[in-house]
Amino acid sequence: MDSTEHIIHAKWLITCKPQEQPLEDHALVIKDGLIMDILPSTTARQHSTAKTTEYATHVVMPGFVNAHTHLAMNLFRGLADDLSLMDWLNNHIWPAERAFVAKEFVRDASQLAIAELIRSGTTCFNDMYFFLQETAEVAVNAGIRGNIGITVIGFPTAWAKTSDEYIAKGLEFHSQYKDHPLIDTTFAPHAIYTETEETLAKIRDLAEEHNLKINMHIHETADEINLSLAKTKKRPLRRLHDLGFLSPRVIAVHMTQIDDEDLAILAQTQPSIVHCPESNMKLASGTCPLASFKKIGLNIALGTDGAASNNDLDMIGEMRSAAFLAKLSSQNPEALPANEALTMATLNGAKALGRDNTFGSLSHGKSADFIAINLNEIETQPVYHPASQIIYSASRNQVEDVWVAGKQLMKNRQLLTLDENEILAKTRYWSAKIKKNS
Amino acid sequence: MDSTEHIIHAKWLITCKPQEQPLEDHALVIKDGLIMDILPSTTARQHSTAKTTEYATHVVMPGFVNAHTHLAMNLFRGLADDLSLMDWLNNHIWPAERAFVAKEFVRDASQLAIAELIRSGTTCFNDMYFFLQETAEVAVNAGIRGNIGITVIGFPTAWAKTSDEYIAKGLEFHSQYKDHPLIDTTFAPHAIYTETEETLAKIRDLAEEHNLKINMHIHETADEINLSLAKTKKRPLRRLHDLGFLSPRVIAVHMTQIDDEDLAILAQTQPSIVHCPESNMKLASGTCPLASFKKIGLNIALGTDGAASNNDLDMIGEMRSAAFLAKLSSQNPEALPANEALTMATLNGAKALGRDNTFGSLSHGKSADFIAINLNEIETQPVYHPASQIIYSASRNQVEDVWVAGKQLMKNRQLLTLDENEILAKTRYWSAKIKKNS
Repeated sequence: MDSTEHIIHAKWLITCKPQEQPLEDHALVIKDGLIMDILPSTTARQHSTAKTTEYATHVVMPGFVNAHTHLAMNLFRGLADDLSLMDWLNNHIWPAERAFVAKEFVRDASQLAIAELIRSGTTCFNDMYFFLQETAEVAVNAGIRGNIGITVIGFPTAWAKTSDEYIAKGLEFHSQYKDHPLIDTTFAPHAIYTETEETLAKIRDLAEEHNLKINMHIHETADEINLSLAKTKKRPLRRLHDLGFLSPRVIAVHMTQIDDEDLAILAQTQPSIVHCPESNMKLASGTCPLASFKKIGLNIALGTDGAASNNDLDMIGEMRSAAFLAKLSSQNPEALPANEALTMATLNGAKALGRDNTFGSLSHGKSADFIAINLNEIETQPVYHPASQIIYSASRNQVEDVWVAGKQLMKNRQLLTLDENEILAKTRYWSAKIKKNS
Repeated sequence: MDSTEHIIHAKWLITCKPQEQPLEDHALVIKDGLIMDILPSTTARQHSTAKTTEYATHVVMPGFVNAHTHLAMNLFRGLADDLSLMDWLNNHIWPAERAFVAKEFVRDASQLAIAELIRSGTTCFNDMYFFLQETAEVAVNAGIRGNIGITVIGFPTAWAKTSDEYIAKGLEFHSQYKDHPLIDTTFAPHAIYTETEETLAKIRDLAEEHNLKINMHIHETADEINLSLAKTKKRPLRRLHDLGFLSPRVIAVHMTQIDDEDLAILAQTQPSIVHCPESNMKLASGTCPLASFKKIGLNIALGTDGAASNNDLDMIGEMRSAAFLAKLSSQNPEALPANEALTMATLNGAKALGRDNTFGSLSHGKSADFIAINLNEIETQPVYHPASQIIYSASRNQVEDVWVAGKQLMKNRQLLTLDENEILAKTRYWSAKIKKNS
């Protein structure tokens, strides 16, 4: 923790505070990992003794909060594409997971994924996978914020055999990490079609007891709805509501195929939503109705999903796809303008995780979690509106520097806490094994 | 023109020939700007005297053909976003064009755009704008292939006052450039709502006489259809068909809002289609029905549209968006798989322009127009299927080298024929002027 005052000058400061316009030639004052002040650069330059960093052609903004990931699936990136969700899961992903997922695999895959997250400006992720401790340790060493999901799924894996074992191991993880400044734990039952209602009720109660958020894939595809209707004559959201499962504690991921009854339930129960537009498009799952959700006051965050379905962890690309899809699906080019897409990818993610007091926007007292995106490239010139350039023109490669809690994780695109060559070598090792097997 | 034999080794060679799988460890043999052979690298290494280039972790593939651009609009990138097409045109773009478009503006803006094209792997563009010679000269100096549209639009601009003047100036340009190896001319009437049927009939005949392709925005938005119905009781495609305008000579750009009668006309007349998914999504224009067009045998190319509407000229991003949108809109995750998206962005573009004998795929006797995309990055590892990695994971920044007709235009991401710093300086000059005015 650096207790020297440090001034970060930016050509444009986008705070992601509601309604705030980009600030030109402004500076962040940081100290002890926190944002102490935001002020015009001319004023900040009068602090004569401070350490300074200059981002003369950059946007400085909060780091992205990727609200839905399966980090360790990075080693399966591109293994099976252009397939439907159920075919992809049953015939490709689950068999590969049965063959490979273990402690070391999760560690190495998490490193690959976290390198990708940092390189594209993400400072906080919300994960759902197995071998929780491996991913958490990699995150801590890399210096990124991690929300680690206690995955619960109704079949045995190398990580746990029964739902009770998934839960027990998860709670053990939670007790170990509950005071860690970078790690939070959530519950993460996989989906209604892979768990019993009994287990979901147990998770509902345990989440309350331990004050944990609950992530779940909900209404991802039409198949999910049809399966539920065939089995119980009720749609998944109705079943979850009847269980008393839905509340602001819930982070509902995907959320396509929404009808009026679903909307009424959501209006009443107010879960957070995670929109994963690229995964939903690529798997032809359907469309998350942002405008309807906004109307009933839901908090909408953004996630990439795992790299095996998406196939990257790039929040800039995801914001762009979210903006494109919102406009097309609502037949309204004013839907999800650039500044709202930025908020969805930052502050709304922090809200979903219950951590918006700590990060998600640049404001006095919050953690110094920020990134610098260099707009001085052929592809993002000229700059009339910096938010527009980020959403509609920038690429992940323009994220130059990344900081979390005042600690720098990337400088001039060089990772400072991870060894890229070592990660690439390990990735070659695993992909050779996986190729042989498939 | 280099008459030494030159061997290009690639980890993966994607030829974009129909049905051909990626070739691993293969080489291109080039000479006099042409592809002389394609063979396994082990065999090629026996040509002991040849000059060689090694792309050890790259895909080598044909350069992209961006089948619809308005290059000079690059200087308006991000000037006005999150608006409908008509609002955007009438209240933002056309006023800015009235204030600024002139010879020098088009020259400088074309340089910015062509730098962006080369940096993202495009080796041929199909443009529709004003001051044709300026764009052509920049293209020739940069070494990229340019199709320059003879724009015809029913209102005066700094370039021409009347439709006849647009045509006359365009044909003068054509006679000057008709034997140029890098430049082709097309007709480019803007749209049915900005031209009279009389002028369109004239263009139909002149295109036949001079054997030129005709680009036109057709069925871009519902507004366009409604305007036509209100005015003539006929949909635009019906009017164009009644005029005898539609044929394989026509490159129909956008093509949303297609009904069964439209499909019957298209099946009969067989124009090429240019799909611009990002522009159509961003402006909420509608969806180009790829599956229906495929069924009736139409050639479908891909374009980015101008950077003021899209907001970039990135064909990798455009292929990804095309694949995503095709899957979602047809509710079929198998729609537009990665290899088809690659063909759309290369060979089909060349076909639309009538130049698929010369470029668009890597095969014996074609021009050596190719690019090298480095997949050895965190974001595109591991590689199970190289085409998948390009479509779903790669970014434009991974295009490392670009060659047109055997001449190298970019090496290790350094432009060899354009001066990036000079382009950025000129862009600053123009954007300051445009900001002041808006």
